[in-house]
Amino acid sequence: MLIVQKYGGTSVANTGRIKAVAERVVAAAKQGHQVIVVVSAMSGETDKLIRLAHEISDRPDDREMDMLLSSGERVTIALTAIAIQKLGHKSMSFTGRQVGIITDSVHTKAMIERIEANRLKIALDEGKIPVVAGFQGIDEFSDVTTLGRGGSDTTAVAIAAALKADLCEIYTDVEGVYTTDPRIVKEARKLGKISYDEMLEMASLGARVLHGRSVEFAKKYNVPLVVRSSFNYAPGTLVVKEDEDMEKIVVSGVAADKNQVRITIMAVPDKPGIAASIFNEIASANIVVDMIVQNISSDGNATDMSFTVSKADSKKALEIAKSVSDKLGAKGVNMNTDVAKVSIVGVGMVSHFGVAAKMFETFAKEGINIMMISTSEIKVSCVIDVKHTERAVQVLHDIFGLAAA
Amino acid sequence: MLIVQKYGGTSVANTGRIKAVAERVVAAAKQGHQVIVVVSAMSGETDKLIRLAHEISDRPDDREMDMLLSSGERVTIALTAIAIQKLGHKSMSFTGRQVGIITDSVHTKAMIERIEANRLKIALDEGKIPVVAGFQGIDEFSDVTTLGRGGSDTTAVAIAAALKADLCEIYTDVEGVYTTDPRIVKEARKLGKISYDEMLEMASLGARVLHGRSVEFAKKYNVPLVVRSSFNYAPGTLVVKEDEDMEKIVVSGVAADKNQVRITIMAVPDKPGIAASIFNEIASANIVVDMIVQNISSDGNATDMSFTVSKADSKKALEIAKSVSDKLGAKGVNMNTDVAKVSIVGVGMVSHFGVAAKMFETFAKEGINIMMISTSEIKVSCVIDVKHTERAVQVLHDIFGLAAA
Repeated sequence: MLIVQKYGGTSVANTGRIKAVAERVVAAAKQGHQVIVVVSAMSGETDKLIRLAHEISDRPDDREMDMLLSSGERVTIALTAIAIQKLGHKSMSFTGRQVGIITDSVHTKAMIERIEANRLKIALDEGKIPVVAGFQGIDEFSDVTTLGRGGSDTTAVAIAAALKADLCEIYTDVEGVYTTDPRIVKEARKLGKISYDEMLEMASLGARVLHGRSVEFAKKYNVPLVVRSSFNYAPGTLVVKEDEDMEKIVVSGVAADKNQVRITIMAVPDKPGIAASIFNEIASANIVVDMIVQNISSDGNATDMSFTVSKADSKKALEIAKSVSDKLGAKGVNMNTDVAKVSIVGVGMVSHFGVAAKMFETFAKEGINIMMISTSEIKVSCVIDVKHTERAVQVLHDIFGLAAA
Repeated sequence: MLIVQKYGGTSVANTGRIKAVAERVVAAAKQGHQVIVVVSAMSGETDKLIRLAHEISDRPDDREMDMLLSSGERVTIALTAIAIQKLGHKSMSFTGRQVGIITDSVHTKAMIERIEANRLKIALDEGKIPVVAGFQGIDEFSDVTTLGRGGSDTTAVAIAAALKADLCEIYTDVEGVYTTDPRIVKEARKLGKISYDEMLEMASLGARVLHGRSVEFAKKYNVPLVVRSSFNYAPGTLVVKEDEDMEKIVVSGVAADKNQVRITIMAVPDKPGIAASIFNEIASANIVVDMIVQNISSDGNATDMSFTVSKADSKKALEIAKSVSDKLGAKGVNMNTDVAKVSIVGVGMVSHFGVAAKMFETFAKEGINIMMISTSEIKVSCVIDVKHTERAVQVLHDIFGLAAA
């Protein structure tokens, strides 16, 4: 088999951990597999670099941030290759550029356009274990780009897709995908299998085990994913196409995301094209908007427009919202940073009525006020006050019977 | 003027220092100069990375070490560009690859073959201050290479030569080139001017203000160099072609180098081609030999061959010496790590007799035993026991009257 193994920051946090990873990689090679390793920066490194940049400027340039942050993975690829060589196996490190990961030029959140992968094929043919820097690529100007937080997952899946790998293993510090965050709900249960779609919703909802784009990629190219721990040998969670075997439970998971802020533009005069004028400007600043809710304003002739963005984008988004508000003659803008998004996800929801209603009813009983609602075929999300997050997750986990194995 | 400014590790040791560097750079730009900045890794970073590699392997692969170490400069170029932008000036960071620094493939001590510099010219034309990663380049395989310790000086001079800059300023934590190490001799005096040749000897002798190759480059392309402090505005030392104005003192400096070991192959059977067979093998391992001394052995039919190499190369060199010794039927090999090389340098020595004799006489009076001697037109070096280093430097500095201004 050709296996791509991706190790996250906690899995390569120090030289002891890197040696353990090398042992795992070499063990797979000794079983006769061809292995490609993708690694993240050592945990804490990326945050340290961001802190340094912010000591210098509160709005550092995106291109320079990519140059800065891409240094972290260079350290781990070199150390991991050295550790594999030390075990007597041939190995060679590669940057994003060297394996030909070509992206667009949207610095700090670039999208992969294609992977050339010639050097990877040559290295495999020579019996080497290639160790590839996750999270990074280059654009058409030969400038370094990064794929955004969690981008190493996407690197791994994209390489697996490009080389038609049989399996992509995502090694992390948890044993798989759980029905909810085990730190919040102690009865949380590890799922044996989950569909790409469910995983996509879970990922976008703040269940931080897998980067959303990596799941999209895996779904598009039908790459079988396994999420498992690099700290033990427990079987992980398989992420695959929805199939007949898949547990047909209505709700398969509860997710919480505290990394969002809600921005509201108040009393926007109600006429066509307003939403477009707001969200075009935000999109052109390369900010991803998550939920959007439009309500009739209290006086009836205007509209309150609320949306959520990640905390990292909140400053930029707030500035844009203010300028749009002035332009449209709205009443003003407010931002609420004390919010959380709590969601339920499940492929079974498509064919079951009343799931959303049951969620709202549960919140009502608990006295948890809902600020925004957004639904898709297989999920329901509510924005609530951040202080209720843990309780909300716990009661939903109970009410939908997720602890029962 | 077009000025290349190079800032070493202590000059960019933290974000406070990086901001100070940015101010200095922008001040030069405001005076109407075009400025290109070259930076090293933050001080301590390179040693930290080497330590991590050695935690994993005692003989890490050279290619992987280059991948590892080249990460340090990426951090400083990005942070420095951000700091310059913060002061309202346009700036852009460049890796060795991005400015087209093409080297040979001798990892960890690569030599620059050419510099393309197209992107630097474009950036300057756009009014940007380019910030370039020192110490690194790429080879013909597109693999990352590094130029060895102090290689950032060479990067700066090579760029200055390629772009025909008017001046190359080397910023460091000392105010210039001294008659000897001021930490050893408190009367040490800063030189206003020194010739390329003298500086070359001083550099190769362990006066660590300038990387030897950078001075060769500067001499070859006639790039005026200034060595000065980034911590104050004191005028530095100008390194230029020898001219009439130059102080015609006999000895202009005393240097000490403790970073060497002496290896002796004992009683090599005395026949032609011996030196070649030893030093060809060492050269093909990419080890630079410094001094070589051949003596008649005590029994008259054999030769003792001694040479010095840097401590970093001592393990490899010792292995080679042992295998050569076996092959040639020599008596064996010994290595002495407790040695130092103490040297006097000066263009005036060419036309003065007795300078070397005065040095040996001084050592004799002080009871300092000389183990090896090597001379060139403008320097005399002696290898002595490391414990005498400081005293040797002090007495030479006194006897040659260097303290007198």
